[in-house]
Amino acid sequence: MTNKLRIALDVMGGDHGAAVVLPAAELSLARHPDLSFQLVGDRAVIEPLLEQLPRLKTAAQVVHTDVAIRMDDKPSQALRRGRWKSSMWLTLEAVKKGDADAAVSAGNTGALMAMARFGLKMLEGIERPALAALWPTLRGESIVLDVGASIGADEHHLVNLAAMGSAMARVLFDLERPTVGLLNIGVEEVKGLEAVREAGRILRDGHFAHLDYHGFVEGDDIGKGTVDVVVTEGFAGNIALKTAEGTARQLAQYLRAAMNRTWRARIGYLLARKALATLREKMDPRRANGGVFLGLNGIVIKSHGAADVEGYAAAIDMGYDMVRYDLLAKIGESLARDREAKTNARLASGAAS
Amino acid sequence: MTNKLRIALDVMGGDHGAAVVLPAAELSLARHPDLSFQLVGDRAVIEPLLEQLPRLKTAAQVVHTDVAIRMDDKPSQALRRGRWKSSMWLTLEAVKKGDADAAVSAGNTGALMAMARFGLKMLEGIERPALAALWPTLRGESIVLDVGASIGADEHHLVNLAAMGSAMARVLFDLERPTVGLLNIGVEEVKGLEAVREAGRILRDGHFAHLDYHGFVEGDDIGKGTVDVVVTEGFAGNIALKTAEGTARQLAQYLRAAMNRTWRARIGYLLARKALATLREKMDPRRANGGVFLGLNGIVIKSHGAADVEGYAAAIDMGYDMVRYDLLAKIGESLARDREAKTNARLASGAAS
Repeated sequence: MTNKLRIALDVMGGDHGAAVVLPAAELSLARHPDLSFQLVGDRAVIEPLLEQLPRLKTAAQVVHTDVAIRMDDKPSQALRRGRWKSSMWLTLEAVKKGDADAAVSAGNTGALMAMARFGLKMLEGIERPALAALWPTLRGESIVLDVGASIGADEHHLVNLAAMGSAMARVLFDLERPTVGLLNIGVEEVKGLEAVREAGRILRDGHFAHLDYHGFVEGDDIGKGTVDVVVTEGFAGNIALKTAEGTARQLAQYLRAAMNRTWRARIGYLLARKALATLREKMDPRRANGGVFLGLNGIVIKSHGAADVEGYAAAIDMGYDMVRYDLLAKIGESLARDREAKTNARLASGAAS
Repeated sequence: MTNKLRIALDVMGGDHGAAVVLPAAELSLARHPDLSFQLVGDRAVIEPLLEQLPRLKTAAQVVHTDVAIRMDDKPSQALRRGRWKSSMWLTLEAVKKGDADAAVSAGNTGALMAMARFGLKMLEGIERPALAALWPTLRGESIVLDVGASIGADEHHLVNLAAMGSAMARVLFDLERPTVGLLNIGVEEVKGLEAVREAGRILRDGHFAHLDYHGFVEGDDIGKGTVDVVVTEGFAGNIALKTAEGTARQLAQYLRAAMNRTWRARIGYLLARKALATLREKMDPRRANGGVFLGLNGIVIKSHGAADVEGYAAAIDMGYDMVRYDLLAKIGESLARDREAKTNARLASGAAS
């Protein structure tokens, strides 16, 4: 039992609750037999469902509560109503107490972030959590952060995002020194970019051991896979992510319409069906479901509220990888080394001026 | 001659210069025989090319200069080197002096904006220009602004963007009261959104005559066509635009690869070729080439620097529509009415507090 990797699931979070979370856990368990689960939620709902999922039943333990955070609760309401007792809180608490190695929730993002911050506390030197997303690219996958945990960022927060994102890339992509780019816009000499420029200077001059600073990247570099890690503040990052999802859905709909327009196209579709299925899979936003909250004393995965079984299982799988390959230790390592690097950058800047 | 619609072209701007600009003018002229052109650039380059384009030759006048703004000139350098004499400056000056109804340039965005602002001046009540893009959606097309003319925006700038964008939608889409959404992110109670919220309050309470305020929209609403006009500040807007372009190119490449993977898929492709060509056209970023600078005392169209003949012609066509349907008068009308509406909103807020 001690070698099992333990994940706590907020069974009452998300649009579908237990009906999605439990089958997803069963699916992820089939892929990772060394998993065990804490299912946090209403016993009266969970237990009958578990009877249908015998494999999961033997690898899971139910933590009962019937208090759920609603998808439209504001973070402050959620904290007031749900502290100590809601399924979201107890899921995070399992990580805090060391009963679980990671927490997964599809509950509302703002509440999850507020509770995680309050319950788990931040890592040394990090003031605000960030949400990191896995982004499919022409070269494979990249990590983009922050995709909406907080708005605005000074240069120090951006440099911390670079350190945490590159630690995550080391874990997920098995790279020694992931390449990192700062998201920027192409127009020169417009005001308001001081933080991005200054972060670029620190990353360039600091000679960070665990990342390879590439420079600025623009929106279209994300999908190209120009860098392994794209760093930006949360407002622009969230808009980039949602815009890309929207564009993918839009083009998928164009394609469906095109392949259905004429008889020739329909026959063509039948012949190309298999190849197009591969394409559909590539375009499927579920594959990349699961954002990781970074900067916390614990591993917390946020699934899309609307995720289906396949999507939620991908979020669990992501939690699994983060624990298995020791994300927190690697982040700690990066942040410590980067404090040195920042000092170097400061010295270099002092010498230059 | 007086009924002709006159457009000044910065022939030396863009990656390809005259080799693209002149054939594009010829193409646009074929679609709009009531056009006439001022071709601003090096006579030694333009005149030989004009010999190959007899239709354009009769409808164009050459304004000679051999000073070009380089694509990598910073706006301040461009102003220093190019004021009074560069092709970009003289193109804008044609509009200022009333010799042309609109200016089109594929030159560098920052320089064009700085020169336009300096040369043409801003409309009353507008402090900074905005760049508006036409965005293909599932419902047709929407206008998104600002896509990168300036970074950051307070609530008054956002409300002005709404007024100008809706005027542009009235011109382009022939709508009485276009719907307008403010781009935002879904996370509640995060800091930094005060300007967006306050702009929302003004737009909601002000009962603007020329626009129908829809509320907040997220990144994936843009491609859905949820609203006719999406309003955001320039950093997020530029990143959204480039990210969507990147995603479209990424998916087009996936599709090409998928249709080439097996013999069956290749035969399927041949059968579906026509339908897929329609799709390709829909996905073609050239169709929407041409951003409009709004807020200036004059109509200025920015073409992509890399635009080809078809793309540049689309930018000229956009300038044509803006003049033909009287964009500037409609913007003036909107701004005047909206000053009233803002006063209403202020009164409503005073009454409520």
